[in-house]
Amino acid sequence: AGPSASWWARSPPSQDQDKEYVGFATLPNQVHRKSVKKGFDFTLMVAGESGLGKSTLVNSLFLTDLYKDRKLLNAEERITQTVEITKHTVDIEEKGVKLKLTIVDTPGFGDAVNNTECWKSVADYIDQQFEQYFRDESGLNRKNIQDNRVHCCLYFISPFGHGLRPLDVEFMKALHEKVNIVPVLAKADTLTPGEVKKKKIKARQLDITGLLFFFARCDLYDHDIIPFAVIGSNTVVEAKGKRVRGRLYPWGIVEVENPAHCDFVKLRNMLVRTHMQDLKDVTRETHYENYRAQCIQSMTRMVVKERNRNKLTRESGTDFPIPVVPGVAESETEKLIREKDEEVRHWVFKGLHTVQYCDA
Amino acid sequence: AGPSASWWARSPPSQDQDKEYVGFATLPNQVHRKSVKKGFDFTLMVAGESGLGKSTLVNSLFLTDLYKDRKLLNAEERITQTVEITKHTVDIEEKGVKLKLTIVDTPGFGDAVNNTECWKSVADYIDQQFEQYFRDESGLNRKNIQDNRVHCCLYFISPFGHGLRPLDVEFMKALHEKVNIVPVLAKADTLTPGEVKKKKIKARQLDITGLLFFFARCDLYDHDIIPFAVIGSNTVVEAKGKRVRGRLYPWGIVEVENPAHCDFVKLRNMLVRTHMQDLKDVTRETHYENYRAQCIQSMTRMVVKERNRNKLTRESGTDFPIPVVPGVAESETEKLIREKDEEVRHWVFKGLHTVQYCDA
Repeated sequence: AGPSASWWARSPPSQDQDKEYVGFATLPNQVHRKSVKKGFDFTLMVAGESGLGKSTLVNSLFLTDLYKDRKLLNAEERITQTVEITKHTVDIEEKGVKLKLTIVDTPGFGDAVNNTECWKSVADYIDQQFEQYFRDESGLNRKNIQDNRVHCCLYFISPFGHGLRPLDVEFMKALHEKVNIVPVLAKADTLTPGEVKKKKIKARQLDITGLLFFFARCDLYDHDIIPFAVIGSNTVVEAKGKRVRGRLYPWGIVEVENPAHCDFVKLRNMLVRTHMQDLKDVTRETHYENYRAQCIQSMTRMVVKERNRNKLTRESGTDFPIPVVPGVAESETEKLIREKDEEVRHWVFKGLHTVQYCDA
Repeated sequence: AGPSASWWARSPPSQDQDKEYVGFATLPNQVHRKSVKKGFDFTLMVAGESGLGKSTLVNSLFLTDLYKDRKLLNAEERITQTVEITKHTVDIEEKGVKLKLTIVDTPGFGDAVNNTECWKSVADYIDQQFEQYFRDESGLNRKNIQDNRVHCCLYFISPFGHGLRPLDVEFMKALHEKVNIVPVLAKADTLTPGEVKKKKIKARQLDITGLLFFFARCDLYDHDIIPFAVIGSNTVVEAKGKRVRGRLYPWGIVEVENPAHCDFVKLRNMLVRTHMQDLKDVTRETHYENYRAQCIQSMTRMVVKERNRNKLTRESGTDFPIPVVPGVAESETEKLIREKDEEVRHWVFKGLHTVQYCDA
């Protein structure tokens, strides 16, 4: 029985509209349902010198208290402190959607007298997470891989500098190909609207936007908003009879979620409500893939070099004279070396397929 | 500035309910939106002897005409034909959701006089798709991987046999760990309701359900429905004033989508509307991972064996006497062999990480 004449496909009777529905339009809903069941995770890094309100902003963004047990160091302790990376994880839930939020903090960043290469420990941390994931996804059991890759880095710019400082530029230059950087102009309640505008323009002139891979790719938002001017607060104050999160000054109340006061709401919308999944996808598809490709390429180069070296050594008669022993012995040595060579080739091919897929 | 006292987190003022919404509850919607933008793909295999209505059922399920150019072979041509695998791909769209549907057909299956191991070419095909994917996902450029893994196999059982035939049992035993098998009782319009019931019970007694990994995992549907009794039709007929897909007999009209007539709607619901994504996930997470793990394990065993063999050969003085040449030469040979050994170890570790992740 071949297919019957499927004339209905060409002229579906109008009264049978419902009948002509296959149902694969439910696929996005199936994906939706499964994602809720599985739950989400997100890893946010915050970087910038001490005192710019990093912790407060994160707590404001996620309405949580991530740093309950934090011990602040005094100035003397901080002299000897190097940049260290700390990690806080919290499970939060909202309307039935579960999120495992990890905040990676970089206390000590920019706090030393000499901050040369202080971005390096941050870059190393990001690479280490990529490396761990590369190992895990190349391993035998991939069921319960712990994914610690950093999806976004909020970089805090001081409101006091005239534009970006060299440390800011160095950090963003060094990291923008490893992680999605979202720069924020910290503690914007110390700046008048005119000052905020000027500082934003200055920051953009220094070619931050060129560094901001994520924004370039997603082509969202007016670039003029960058860097987001933010004010954080975890205290609720009364403003015009309404209770809002804000800061109470003698001259008035700063409302965190008032768009006329700062870009907090816009930052939260982008970071959480519209582009959180995008940040994860760019991390996975671009930053991680770049890391992985570099890894494989340098491994391949190493093997090729090694092989050439061996070949050279074997061929240059003076340095490495193959012992001229008659009969079996010599050919066996050669055979062993050849076999080992084949073994290497086998692994290069089986494990990595680098050569033939290079231009695929 | 450390975190301010976040007392609001513990006692949120009731009038500020809306303010206390972070917004990550939109994550499933972000996933939903991105999945629609990207589009879906699904690969369905159909297997079973000729004439059981495989093509008609597929066309009925997806309201498409996948086999426009099909050339049916006559009996003599089919004598010399071996099982070959053909692939049809069609892009369909429904309510803005795009689906790239691939149907893998197995013409010739079970049609020969001697069908010994005729499931083998089907199993090989499935493995080849896994192998290709394994190569691709181990490669350098993973952006545009063509994923041809088979997500589901509809296995057509003849309505004429007394329960399952040995070929059916052999096929399902051989393939149930490679692919999600959904057995269907073909051309159920040749069977009375009592006969359908009896055949289903018989089929289940023969321990099909034990084979049906997908059903066992998903724990959906009453198992009593298996195998789905189906009737396909691509012609529209008039039944009680309504135009329905069906088959017009002198004794009445068989309506494909009438639940009292067959399980077509239930099959379509499961396959398309509720569990299509599940079928893909089980393929990816279980069948493919099993294949991949077996691959890696056999590769590891090979290398260990090879190394032991080399070690043995080198140690047993009679077969392979290391040439006793004084001074540099000898140690250089040894060094070369040792280096090659290290190279192999390096690749085993870097490329595969099999040993240490075995029990992870």
